[in-house]
Amino acid sequence: MPSFLTMSKEELTKNKFSLEESYELLKSKNLKLDMSRGKPGADQLDLSMKLLDAVTAQTSCKDGNNFDLRNYGIPDGTAESKAFFANMLEVNPEQVIVGGNSSLNMMFDIVSQLMTHGIDGQTPWGKLDTVKFLCPSPGYDRHFSICEYFGIEMIPVSMTATGPDMDEVERLVREDDSVKGLWCIPKYSNPTGVTYSDETVRRLAGLSPKAPDFRIFWDNAYCVHHLKEQGDTLLNILEQCRFYGGEDKVFIFASTSKITFPGGGLAAVATGQKNIKWLKGRIGMQTIGPDKLNQLRHTLCFPTLADLEAHMKQHAEILRPKFEAVINALKDIEDLCSWETPNGGYFVSVNTLDGCAKRVAELCKEAGVVLTPAGVTFPYGKDPKDQNLRIAPTFPPIHELEQAMELFCLCVQIASLEKLIKKVS
Amino acid sequence: MPSFLTMSKEELTKNKFSLEESYELLKSKNLKLDMSRGKPGADQLDLSMKLLDAVTAQTSCKDGNNFDLRNYGIPDGTAESKAFFANMLEVNPEQVIVGGNSSLNMMFDIVSQLMTHGIDGQTPWGKLDTVKFLCPSPGYDRHFSICEYFGIEMIPVSMTATGPDMDEVERLVREDDSVKGLWCIPKYSNPTGVTYSDETVRRLAGLSPKAPDFRIFWDNAYCVHHLKEQGDTLLNILEQCRFYGGEDKVFIFASTSKITFPGGGLAAVATGQKNIKWLKGRIGMQTIGPDKLNQLRHTLCFPTLADLEAHMKQHAEILRPKFEAVINALKDIEDLCSWETPNGGYFVSVNTLDGCAKRVAELCKEAGVVLTPAGVTFPYGKDPKDQNLRIAPTFPPIHELEQAMELFCLCVQIASLEKLIKKVS
Repeated sequence: MPSFLTMSKEELTKNKFSLEESYELLKSKNLKLDMSRGKPGADQLDLSMKLLDAVTAQTSCKDGNNFDLRNYGIPDGTAESKAFFANMLEVNPEQVIVGGNSSLNMMFDIVSQLMTHGIDGQTPWGKLDTVKFLCPSPGYDRHFSICEYFGIEMIPVSMTATGPDMDEVERLVREDDSVKGLWCIPKYSNPTGVTYSDETVRRLAGLSPKAPDFRIFWDNAYCVHHLKEQGDTLLNILEQCRFYGGEDKVFIFASTSKITFPGGGLAAVATGQKNIKWLKGRIGMQTIGPDKLNQLRHTLCFPTLADLEAHMKQHAEILRPKFEAVINALKDIEDLCSWETPNGGYFVSVNTLDGCAKRVAELCKEAGVVLTPAGVTFPYGKDPKDQNLRIAPTFPPIHELEQAMELFCLCVQIASLEKLIKKVS
Repeated sequence: MPSFLTMSKEELTKNKFSLEESYELLKSKNLKLDMSRGKPGADQLDLSMKLLDAVTAQTSCKDGNNFDLRNYGIPDGTAESKAFFANMLEVNPEQVIVGGNSSLNMMFDIVSQLMTHGIDGQTPWGKLDTVKFLCPSPGYDRHFSICEYFGIEMIPVSMTATGPDMDEVERLVREDDSVKGLWCIPKYSNPTGVTYSDETVRRLAGLSPKAPDFRIFWDNAYCVHHLKEQGDTLLNILEQCRFYGGEDKVFIFASTSKITFPGGGLAAVATGQKNIKWLKGRIGMQTIGPDKLNQLRHTLCFPTLADLEAHMKQHAEILRPKFEAVINALKDIEDLCSWETPNGGYFVSVNTLDGCAKRVAELCKEAGVVLTPAGVTFPYGKDPKDQNLRIAPTFPPIHELEQAMELFCLCVQIASLEKLIKKVS
């Protein structure tokens, strides 16, 4: 296919006309496809049905200390579930608190605690005029929503192929004591798929923030979610922080939402001992404790890290063809967009020509394919170049995904042509 | 037994000496008994083991709308679990939000939301100099802890045999716009066992608070937890509030912690539509949704209210003898203390002679029986008369409970004698 980028207005218009015909044809099929959220598909969920048989009426519900997990108690999680997450995150069990089923909930609660109570004897954030978070962008919309909810000002920082722009991060945290936090998805980042380089992790651990209550929110949502046999490796941030003199600089989050069930998994936070103590001070007031029977289900199902890794390989088998379908489709329009091919995670991040993303999402929606709304991968929903689109290929069955991608590529072409025609006019 | 209250100093001293001998004998047995917390006993937990077989690898995990409950979504709870709590609380399903496993957590979160965001366009409580809650006392220590955590000033209000002293409540909420909340355990109250009278509920619903953002926190923790065949009845507060013009005046809480498993149950809040909308505004930012598979377990196990009621009768069978053992033991020392005999709930509240409660708890502890610390049933742990003790008879097996009560009564006698001897000296 000749490139649109070098065509005359006449040729562009002709091509646009023919593409619009194809578009109308697809539209007439009344598609109802969804590539908007990072949801596991039904076949992935089927992999974990054994979890539902792990604890039955015949199972002993005692933990290793002979404590009855059916009853009140153990507000910070069972020893076994701490060990599970400690293995997964390569930390010590005493650095872990296991909560309910939502790591987002744990992030939200920690920000909430910082707002009302502060940390390290510093002023509660809610009593300050301005609190800022650095937001590597494109990034995860639900991180940004937490900031918006609490009135935290978001400062976008560019995402590069090795992680956030570290020169910018270092400068901002050093200069401004209202910069209190930094969102990170360090492995198979949402949405770009990038895994932070060793240098990035080291520089993050070595940050010298002006605010003593600055914290890194390290959302390691995809830590074991490889697509390839040989997954990316990520430097251990807690170890690096220890080396640089402060494990309490970071809150690490993880969950089994995309390992077992989003609607019935486990979530955890790992951090330094001062933070752990601070967290326990709230948890003791806040709750009677997490669902310990669901913790038991998970630890019985995955007694070793090897069991977990074997399970994740089954996920990868299902997901790999879906990601390949997306990448293959994109290759046909490679002069009109760019993307990173991820080695894991849940997304493919596509950059269109400048000013086309919103129009692509609109065209897709009109024809029955829902994308994550254009812009939401940036703070306040404002993509400065209107170019980023997040494709979530995991939920639809592969034949639907292929159809959706056919339409997606068509829409990118049409939107690009509209733009190019305007340009040459 | 002749009453200590009319004895001479000599007689008192003689009796004390002989009781102390019995105390030392019991102490030498190295008892390790716990009557401190309202925990179900293991035999009660055994009643709910069917819950663990309700959802297996063979179960369809779809809800009535064909939604896969294993996946993300439905942040406010499944339709079925809303119906479950609606039946239990005699409200409409659309008035219900079902959360995780801890109703305390929902109370905490609502107070937290009021602190950071406020409600009805009013100033967030965290930005006010003073926020006060009315605390019927004796009451539940974990309610008081939430207030302490958020720096909310607690105003004790006397608990009577019909609920909180309503003259006092009406006066305080009418006069002072910093009075923003009222804690209530309206049925089988913790610890007094009192169920609020119809008049009390009507007067609460009809309150005219000076603060537009005043809310009643209606912790209906024991709504179906009867001990007798014919349980107490409680007027429907939401209905009464509607009659008096405002369902949004009340947040109702309930959980299955003491129905199924404290370590794996469900919790819910019921309230008016404006509050529901306000809550959903936070929930959407806060979490990916509750554990819907555990909701499914519960709704499959208890398809009708009749199933739930039959189940609660089994609990009552186990608990009734335990409460009888406590009451029978107390009868032997009835001149030295007073109590209400509850028709349900989890506690027996005992008032000793003035100034004896702390000493009784101390004596019990020394001899190996743990009581809820004296004082904690009052705001800031300060029982003005040092007379209230909360007995939690549910957790220990009955033979242990009887032993513990023997010691308890002995300690009440000794502490009373110490007091009386001082008095006649």
